[in-house]
Amino acid sequence: MIDFKRKSWVSGADSSEFPIQNLPFGIYNTASKSKRVGVAIGSQILDLAALVKVGVLNIPMNVLENSSLNDFIALGKSVTNKVRLDLADLLDVNNKEFAARADLAQFFDNMSEATMHMPVQVGDYTDFYSSRDHATNVGKMFRDPANALLPNWLHLPVGYHGRASSIVISGASYHRPKGQTKPVETEPPVYGPSKRMDFELEVAFVIGKETQLGQSISTKQAEDHIFGLVLFNDLSARDIQQWEYVPLGPFLAKNFCSVISPWIVTIEALDAFRVEGEKQDPKVLPYLEFEGKKNYDIKLEVSLTPENGEETIVSKSNFKYMYWNMCQQLAHHTVNGCNMRVGDMLASGTISGPEKHEFGSMLELAWKGTEPIPMKDGTTRVFMNDNDTCILRGFGEKDGVKIGFGECVSTLLPAI
Amino acid sequence: MIDFKRKSWVSGADSSEFPIQNLPFGIYNTASKSKRVGVAIGSQILDLAALVKVGVLNIPMNVLENSSLNDFIALGKSVTNKVRLDLADLLDVNNKEFAARADLAQFFDNMSEATMHMPVQVGDYTDFYSSRDHATNVGKMFRDPANALLPNWLHLPVGYHGRASSIVISGASYHRPKGQTKPVETEPPVYGPSKRMDFELEVAFVIGKETQLGQSISTKQAEDHIFGLVLFNDLSARDIQQWEYVPLGPFLAKNFCSVISPWIVTIEALDAFRVEGEKQDPKVLPYLEFEGKKNYDIKLEVSLTPENGEETIVSKSNFKYMYWNMCQQLAHHTVNGCNMRVGDMLASGTISGPEKHEFGSMLELAWKGTEPIPMKDGTTRVFMNDNDTCILRGFGEKDGVKIGFGECVSTLLPAI
Repeated sequence: MIDFKRKSWVSGADSSEFPIQNLPFGIYNTASKSKRVGVAIGSQILDLAALVKVGVLNIPMNVLENSSLNDFIALGKSVTNKVRLDLADLLDVNNKEFAARADLAQFFDNMSEATMHMPVQVGDYTDFYSSRDHATNVGKMFRDPANALLPNWLHLPVGYHGRASSIVISGASYHRPKGQTKPVETEPPVYGPSKRMDFELEVAFVIGKETQLGQSISTKQAEDHIFGLVLFNDLSARDIQQWEYVPLGPFLAKNFCSVISPWIVTIEALDAFRVEGEKQDPKVLPYLEFEGKKNYDIKLEVSLTPENGEETIVSKSNFKYMYWNMCQQLAHHTVNGCNMRVGDMLASGTISGPEKHEFGSMLELAWKGTEPIPMKDGTTRVFMNDNDTCILRGFGEKDGVKIGFGECVSTLLPAI
Repeated sequence: MIDFKRKSWVSGADSSEFPIQNLPFGIYNTASKSKRVGVAIGSQILDLAALVKVGVLNIPMNVLENSSLNDFIALGKSVTNKVRLDLADLLDVNNKEFAARADLAQFFDNMSEATMHMPVQVGDYTDFYSSRDHATNVGKMFRDPANALLPNWLHLPVGYHGRASSIVISGASYHRPKGQTKPVETEPPVYGPSKRMDFELEVAFVIGKETQLGQSISTKQAEDHIFGLVLFNDLSARDIQQWEYVPLGPFLAKNFCSVISPWIVTIEALDAFRVEGEKQDPKVLPYLEFEGKKNYDIKLEVSLTPENGEETIVSKSNFKYMYWNMCQQLAHHTVNGCNMRVGDMLASGTISGPEKHEFGSMLELAWKGTEPIPMKDGTTRVFMNDNDTCILRGFGEKDGVKIGFGECVSTLLPAI
């Protein structure tokens, strides 16, 4: 049970998206420190290796002075959850002793002076397609409006493998991808920069416990295998996708760049935001059945900012809108014996809500280019323009306390 | 120019699939040696670290005493090609000096006493769909016989992302996967072991030179980025695939196990087997144009062996049947700026020839179950039975010299 009344002595932490109740993990470096494991608190980063050096924490140093969290996560929840609880005790407003240490400064780095890095080495990345509203919207636009959902959609969490190498950390700039498209149905395909650059608002979870080939994870076991969550922008070139995706799925439309938020928020930190999901009808097969609240009320938003321009919020959605929850996704992914490794990333698919302003992609927001999205500067968008910056944000909120992810920022540069 | 007259003093090497002209790389260990880089010669493995210890080779030891070839490959072709040439000089029948060394035994291990391991850590795995006969056969069976090839197929090498974690080395046993299928069109889906277990005869290439996000590799540059090739069995559960694959492609039908041959045969060792591919009509877009012979005449075969039974060769195909060559695949894969890492694996897709006995999957050989495949023991197969062992073999041949890959062996165990 998380105590939302609890306060920290760290200045500004309580009102930030990284209060004492969050304590997410990341990888950072500074001008004087090599890459290492850090924990966010307010606008500060707690340096775990520095705490080990003075004997306040007891974790192998090579796990902490490391370029990824994989080895730390692999220690298991019995260790990583205890670290979070121990850190909360250090940072608690009532811990006058720790707050009064003369050597306190060595444990903290200012976020503004740190560089964040990919928190995990992603072995494999899977993208699901688990928002009913998103799948319905896409089906209406590109297939049969009367039968928008394909026959399998309500029976299993449809998913596909994505590219791990092109997942990068927030703050990325990427070039508009070039490729084949077929703008005129009756003409041959053409080569050139994509003209339909889109974001996709997603949340991804990070695997915390490995399995071997042949082993399955039940919906009941699933949460024990989920370390935490990040925001995920599954950038997409819609025109490339439309031409290439039959019959084997999206490929070059997706693998030029995907962007994640810098901090992995543990699933334990999100416990207070559990809610029921939509009732699943038809009834799912037994291996997809689950008990309890497996959806999460996490508010999500997407903004676009033109170069030197003003930011416009273009979508406000919520992670609670998932039809298939993470436990079902993981149970389905491993029902055939597919092995999971620590650091693997499984994304939700675009998270759209039922209302138009809750759609999680420009494709849907501008309804395939027919309903331009107004920007604060008076311009409109149907897809992203060169030099547009896209920001995803997300947080759970209870008793005035916000548990956030940090921004997931990316800027579209012109084609090379 | 490879000298096919050249002989080795290593007993049996000249008539084996690992003659002095091949010298492929792998990772092995023995009872007394930890995992390390080895080179196949005849029925022996050359221990490169042992050669460094006596000063015969000059490569950093940590690159060779390593659980994967990634660091070795990353040294670049200027190093790895020179190693192969230097080793050939050591093993040449005219090198009486090296062959007469008193300490010769320490450089060699018997293959029969060694365990082979995954040669590379695969960051990302991509599977193409580049055999015209295979794509046509599948299109005829599952879609429209009159329009078997989908509209994009002749314009680009269709591909999709696969699972890297489930790629294993030859010798693997794997369990029949369970999952959702829809055996009766008008009934709801059911859960259970796959009833349509298939092999797919493929060849995969291994990336030898990394690129950064945003960077493309031209068809002209492509071979400089290809370290070598392996045989690849893309095991498939056809009934799971048929139900799940719309609209985002194959997923659980493929990621329960894929099997590769143990030795990476360098692209340089295959140079003598270059042939012209099929003329591409319609003309491809400029970024897919190429010069020279980019297909390879590599004979391929697949056999099935029941438990305690006799082996039956069920397919004889050839790598030369690829419509899209590796240079085109790599140029296409990176035209959007997708980054490649050393060790990434890109597979051909099932390689079928025009004749029925050249089809590269049971789906095609038994034509969707309608034409059972006769086995030597009098039984028949339309898909694989429990405890069937499947073996892929492949070699190029010139002047009586065979350049082979080693067998790619896997056994289907009953469902758990």
